[in-house]
Amino acid sequence: MKIDFMKKSEPRISVIIPNTSKDFLAHHRKELSGEFPDVEVTCLDKGPDSVESFIDEVDAGLQLAKLVKDAEKKGFDAVVVSCFTNPALNALREIVSIPVIGAGEAALYVAASLGDRIGILSVLKETNPVVRHMVRGLGLEGRVITIRDVGIPVLGLSHGERVEEQIFEACLKAINEDGAEVLVLGCTGMVGLSDRLQEKLKAKGYEVPVVDPIRSAIYWAKMLVRLGLRQSRISYPHPLAKKRRLDSE
Amino acid sequence: MKIDFMKKSEPRISVIIPNTSKDFLAHHRKELSGEFPDVEVTCLDKGPDSVESFIDEVDAGLQLAKLVKDAEKKGFDAVVVSCFTNPALNALREIVSIPVIGAGEAALYVAASLGDRIGILSVLKETNPVVRHMVRGLGLEGRVITIRDVGIPVLGLSHGERVEEQIFEACLKAINEDGAEVLVLGCTGMVGLSDRLQEKLKAKGYEVPVVDPIRSAIYWAKMLVRLGLRQSRISYPHPLAKKRRLDSE
Amino acid sequence: MKIDFMKKSEPRISVIIPNTSKDFLAHHRKELSGEFPDVEVTCLDKGPDSVESFIDEVDAGLQLAKLVKDAEKKGFDAVVVSCFTNPALNALREIVSIPVIGAGEAALYVAASLGDRIGILSVLKETNPVVRHMVRGLGLEGRVITIRDVGIPVLGLSHGERVEEQIFEACLKAINEDGAEVLVLGCTGMVGLSDRLQEKLKAKGYEVPVVDPIRSAIYWAKMLVRLGLRQSRISYPHPLAKKRRLDSE
Amino acid sequence: MKIDFMKKSEPRISVIIPNTSKDFLAHHRKELSGEFPDVEVTCLDKGPDSVESFIDEVDAGLQLAKLVKDAEKKGFDAVVVSCFTNPALNALREIVSIPVIGAGEAALYVAASLGDRIGILSVLKETNPVVRHMVRGLGLEGRVITIRDVGIPVLGLSHGERVEEQIFEACLKAINEDGAEVLVLGCTGMVGLSDRLQEKLKAKGYEVPVVDPIRSAIYWAKMLVRLGLRQSRISYPHPLAKKRRLDSE
Amino acid sequence: MKIDFMKKSEPRISVIIPNTSKDFLAHHRKELSGEFPDVEVTCLDKGPDSVESFIDEVDAGLQLAKLVKDAEKKGFDAVVVSCFTNPALNALREIVSIPVIGAGEAALYVAASLGDRIGILSVLKETNPVVRHMVRGLGLEGRVITIRDVGIPVLGLSHGERVEEQIFEACLKAINEDGAEVLVLGCTGMVGLSDRLQEKLKAKGYEVPVVDPIRSAIYWAKMLVRLGLRQSRISYPHPLAKKRRLDSE
Amino acid sequence: MKIDFMKKSEPRISVIIPNTSKDFLAHHRKELSGEFPDVEVTCLDKGPDSVESFIDEVDAGLQLAKLVKDAEKKGFDAVVVSCFTNPALNALREIVSIPVIGAGEAALYVAASLGDRIGILSVLKETNPVVRHMVRGLGLEGRVITIRDVGIPVLGLSHGERVEEQIFEACLKAINEDGAEVLVLGCTGMVGLSDRLQEKLKAKGYEVPVVDPIRSAIYWAKMLVRLGLRQSRISYPHPLAKKRRLDSE
Repeated sequence: MKIDFMKKSEPRISVIIPNTSKDFLAHHRKELSGEFPDVEVTCLDKGPDSVESFIDEVDAGLQLAKLVKDAEKKGFDAVVVSCFTNPALNALREIVSIPVIGAGEAALYVAASLGDRIGILSVLKETNPVVRHMVRGLGLEGRVITIRDVGIPVLGLSHGERVEEQIFEACLKAINEDGAEVLVLGCTGMVGLSDRLQEKLKAKGYEVPVVDPIRSAIYWAKMLVRLGLRQSRISYPHPLAKKRRLDSE
Repeated sequence: MKIDFMKKSEPRISVIIPNTSKDFLAHHRKELSGEFPDVEVTCLDKGPDSVESFIDEVDAGLQLAKLVKDAEKKGFDAVVVSCFTNPALNALREIVSIPVIGAGEAALYVAASLGDRIGILSVLKETNPVVRHMVRGLGLEGRVITIRDVGIPVLGLSHGERVEEQIFEACLKAINEDGAEVLVLGCTGMVGLSDRLQEKLKAKGYEVPVVDPIRSAIYWAKMLVRLGLRQSRISYPHPLAKKRRLDSE
Repeated sequence: MKIDFMKKSEPRISVIIPNTSKDFLAHHRKELSGEFPDVEVTCLDKGPDSVESFIDEVDAGLQLAKLVKDAEKKGFDAVVVSCFTNPALNALREIVSIPVIGAGEAALYVAASLGDRIGILSVLKETNPVVRHMVRGLGLEGRVITIRDVGIPVLGLSHGERVEEQIFEACLKAINEDGAEVLVLGCTGMVGLSDRLQEKLKAKGYEVPVVDPIRSAIYWAKMLVRLGLRQSRISYPHPLAKKRRLDSE
Repeated sequence: MKIDFMKKSEPRISVIIPNTSKDFLAHHRKELSGEFPDVEVTCLDKGPDSVESFIDEVDAGLQLAKLVKDAEKKGFDAVVVSCFTNPALNALREIVSIPVIGAGEAALYVAASLGDRIGILSVLKETNPVVRHMVRGLGLEGRVITIRDVGIPVLGLSHGERVEEQIFEACLKAINEDGAEVLVLGCTGMVGLSDRLQEKLKAKGYEVPVVDPIRSAIYWAKMLVRLGLRQSRISYPHPLAKKRRLDSE
Repeated sequence: MKIDFMKKSEPRISVIIPNTSKDFLAHHRKELSGEFPDVEVTCLDKGPDSVESFIDEVDAGLQLAKLVKDAEKKGFDAVVVSCFTNPALNALREIVSIPVIGAGEAALYVAASLGDRIGILSVLKETNPVVRHMVRGLGLEGRVITIRDVGIPVLGLSHGERVEEQIFEACLKAINEDGAEVLVLGCTGMVGLSDRLQEKLKAKGYEVPVVDPIRSAIYWAKMLVRLGLRQSRISYPHPLAKKRRLDSE
Repeated sequence: MKIDFMKKSEPRISVIIPNTSKDFLAHHRKELSGEFPDVEVTCLDKGPDSVESFIDEVDAGLQLAKLVKDAEKKGFDAVVVSCFTNPALNALREIVSIPVIGAGEAALYVAASLGDRIGILSVLKETNPVVRHMVRGLGLEGRVITIRDVGIPVLGLSHGERVEEQIFEACLKAINEDGAEVLVLGCTGMVGLSDRLQEKLKAKGYEVPVVDPIRSAIYWAKMLVRLGLRQSRISYPHPLAKKRRLDSE
């Protein structure tokens, strides 16, 4: 399949959520449709309700790989995995020729261009080891000063005002107690909150950017397509031919 | 389920190979049965022929998780994953209460206690990014001076004398060109070669240890059981209850 | 001055070249006008012919600061400094409220999302310490595997086919001798070459992305504006009121 | 002298305590004899009462070297230095052909295989610089999150219940205030406490492994012998022939 | 111009303050004249009142470069830039053949030879990013445990006893709350205070060295001259001939 | 004993060589007496002929400690240990109240102020692990790009012109093959060669400083005395009272 990486029309982006929650999907579509009317958002049929642990990443991996291959076949220009911890990201880059972007990775680099010491607002303390492992994998440990959980599970993020308050309180602590200078929302389920959090922080005297991971990743995907870039085949070689379970997924 | 971690009898270890190759399994059993007559060695029904890429790790993950849970149910004291790149290791530690050991991790720590700068002999150049990612995840980048591939796929390792020669040549280059001071075989399929490689190196004037990953990991597993230790629940919390594909695996 | 960060129209980007070369300016305008018809490109009146050393960065700093302040006054939504070594970047972020993006920084993060080990093609060996200092300042030393100069001064980059050949040869060496997996052009004067270099590499069997820094930075600037983000005031506080030379620049 | 590294009988391990305290020796023998009836435990005639500082390490070095050489002559298969800070460890590896294991090194690697962020419980705050220097020498700074002293000198560790309480309180602080996820007892004089500390932590809701350094090191030594491995002669070359004080020790 | 680097007479050192404050200059001269009667101290005509931000460094750069070139022409043996954040230091080393020493750099290395974990007492919290950037540029992030501001602007440092008290309180916090083991005054405007601070700390039971940056740098400059050493032309190559603003400064 | 740290007279420095070679001592005295007529140079009675390995450091430690204590009793203002690998340095700082300086440490910091990437010329390849361990202990791994041995044992350094040639050839390789930008002589036995090596390099077009470790350390010691500084008692606490072999040395 030939991809025209330099085409001038709007790049076609497929956003894949690596969980099976219909609520999460609906919330994502509602929050993203205004800014990105042309982006397709889908989720898994088989896999975990939400991704909050290493085993959830394993649980999502197989079907996530299948959906990424399908997206390439359908002619999308790039895929965004809508999960902060970048599940299976390296594997996904091996199996297709279109760029694959992880929400956490994009958000961290965007944050790094806005301030020196990055604070991540994760969902639960149980999720922090997964986030830390991702940060270390990117070689960004020297820039991430804190991973602070807000105490809300992924599927609880779309309900009620208390969510915003709890995240806001964690933002203040990340700044005042941990020394964060730029903040990153550590779950794509927090979509829609970054602007208000930023305003509330400003009202308290903190002009600190709050980076939304899924929106960052969609712009990142478009940027890569317009730049005519995709993943390196030295870092992510096409897998050798062999019998795999994925082929019958 | 209650595990007696301090029992004095020989610990019961389950070695799980995260691929579906019957040849690989037979070779493993043959090489390990003399030294470890009491160790059970199994492999996957569903998954990749061999693990040589990130996607192979994803492909193996689901059933590997199931087999690890089964091993715990059967009363094993610890599980060893027989693959150098430690596929799904963090996830496996979350889902059981017995220790889970990765061959690559055990081998690298053993090597670190024998010399300063570690050289890894990987299978193929396409596999090197997976190995490097694992090393970075362990925080051992400062100790690993080279990852040098021997140019033989996993399933080619059990055939013929040329294999040993090619690995030996790579060992010499790792020492002379890259500065390695202690060597680690970068695939558990290389089992059975470390002693002869060590002798050949000595004959050339290099008294350099060559660490076998699967044997290291089995001793490591026994050590942990005898010490009454298992993984931290802060680093690897039990997963929250939720719908997962794994439950119907 | 109030900036509407969420506006839906195309963001207005000012590209400022921190040198005084009219040739460089013309070349930039020619190469960028097709892809970015709405972007304004300007350069310095006072300062160095080209930026190739630490003293050149100092030489450019004062007027660069003035032009960035002017760009904000004129209502631009973001400023891109068209120089790989990000001269005075931290200072520029202090003095305005619109985002300021450095070409080198944007290119490195883009590259980091495409491959693991980054190779930078710098202009001259005399420039390498400046590039290395920039990489260290970003905390990316663990990801940049080589800084390899192509042996052409900044103002020589826009002339003749030999330029492309020399850069191509350096690309091959960065991959084969240094282990680079993704390449970054280390001078914005190399604009217009990345696509052809990428194709030539592919023809030789290397599917390795070649990142253009100025184009990356322009897309980055647009991304930040659309995301409603600007630099952290904790990392880059507004300067305290005091007598400065800049005010009479 | 020829060592049969592959022998099937139980490896003969010599544990050498680098201090002159008879109380410490008696306590060690009492605690270790049940689990390791075949292990010989000795201590110095000349040297410090206990090792709590850099000068104590120097003070112990000469006779420690002599005892390690003697152990090799007596036919032991490996030597364990029973001190957390690994005094003279690199030197000892140079002078014999059997493996020499430091208690601190073994414990840290064991801990690293059980959790991500390691907390060390040291004896006195005056000892912390020695511990930190050892950790840095191993290249493990990225994994050790805290070195927290319990406020008890080495020779006070074998007396009374308050000891266990004080260490337990330090364990809780290491977890709650410092973020430790796996704990390491930072003195071999703490032998015999790890299991109870682990249980008490579990009773408080913390399933966190507590690693005993001397027991870890003895198993480590046996593992190396069974694996047929000893230190690299590139990292630890046999010393050149010259006049040394050690020869008349 | 020929410099006799091995001359036996007292080296001639030019201290250049990169700000325009006459008060700061007078205070410097007063504090330094007793210990260094032969050292010339000058400051800028054009530039910032004080250096407390990245833009102040840019603002000072051009004339600082001119003064350094003048110092070389006048026959000085070395130049010391009296500012903790080492403004334009790399650039200054490019343009002259005599050694150029930054106060912050000298102080940090002196401190590193006196204790393990360094605490820096900076002027204002707004200045901390500049200090941190300098520390990272030197590769000393692993040794600097804290950058703690005393809450006094540069030009407020020469007035009244409250200054000494505030710095002393910050010293105590750096030791007790942050774990600093050796302290560095983070502004050359703090000259004259280190001895008294050291005594006061000792009176409280802390035998912790307090390093004065400008005095350290002057001795450093003399040391380099006596050693016959100057900056490497590979790290700091002479700038290529080109049109620069500096030439008409 | 009271030390007047601020005295204006020339500081009294004791240089202690941690070996027993009378030739080495004579060579040292000859080379240093012109530049430092007031400095006392002594060596060990008991210990190794030369320090080239970890065991040599242990062998020298006890009497070195005694001599350092004696130097303090005799009223010296500071002690310099004339050995590049800083044997027992941390211990020596614990036992006296006057500053103790290691030649390697001083040389590396001096070099770090002259160029970015440091190359060390060590004596033998067998010594490289000791040097590397020292560099890691200082936290300078990010700045030292190569440790290259010249192939001459310590006691061979004072004989004949071939020595200078061999070191010079290693210097060229360190620059051209390893990327060194500033060089450090890695043994104090190389005293007297740095100036000529620097000139020869310049004649070949390399303006690269060559740092002499013992001369650097003597100036460093004087600098510390004049600055009124000595080691931190938090990093190097006075040892607790206990029975030690050192007391009967």
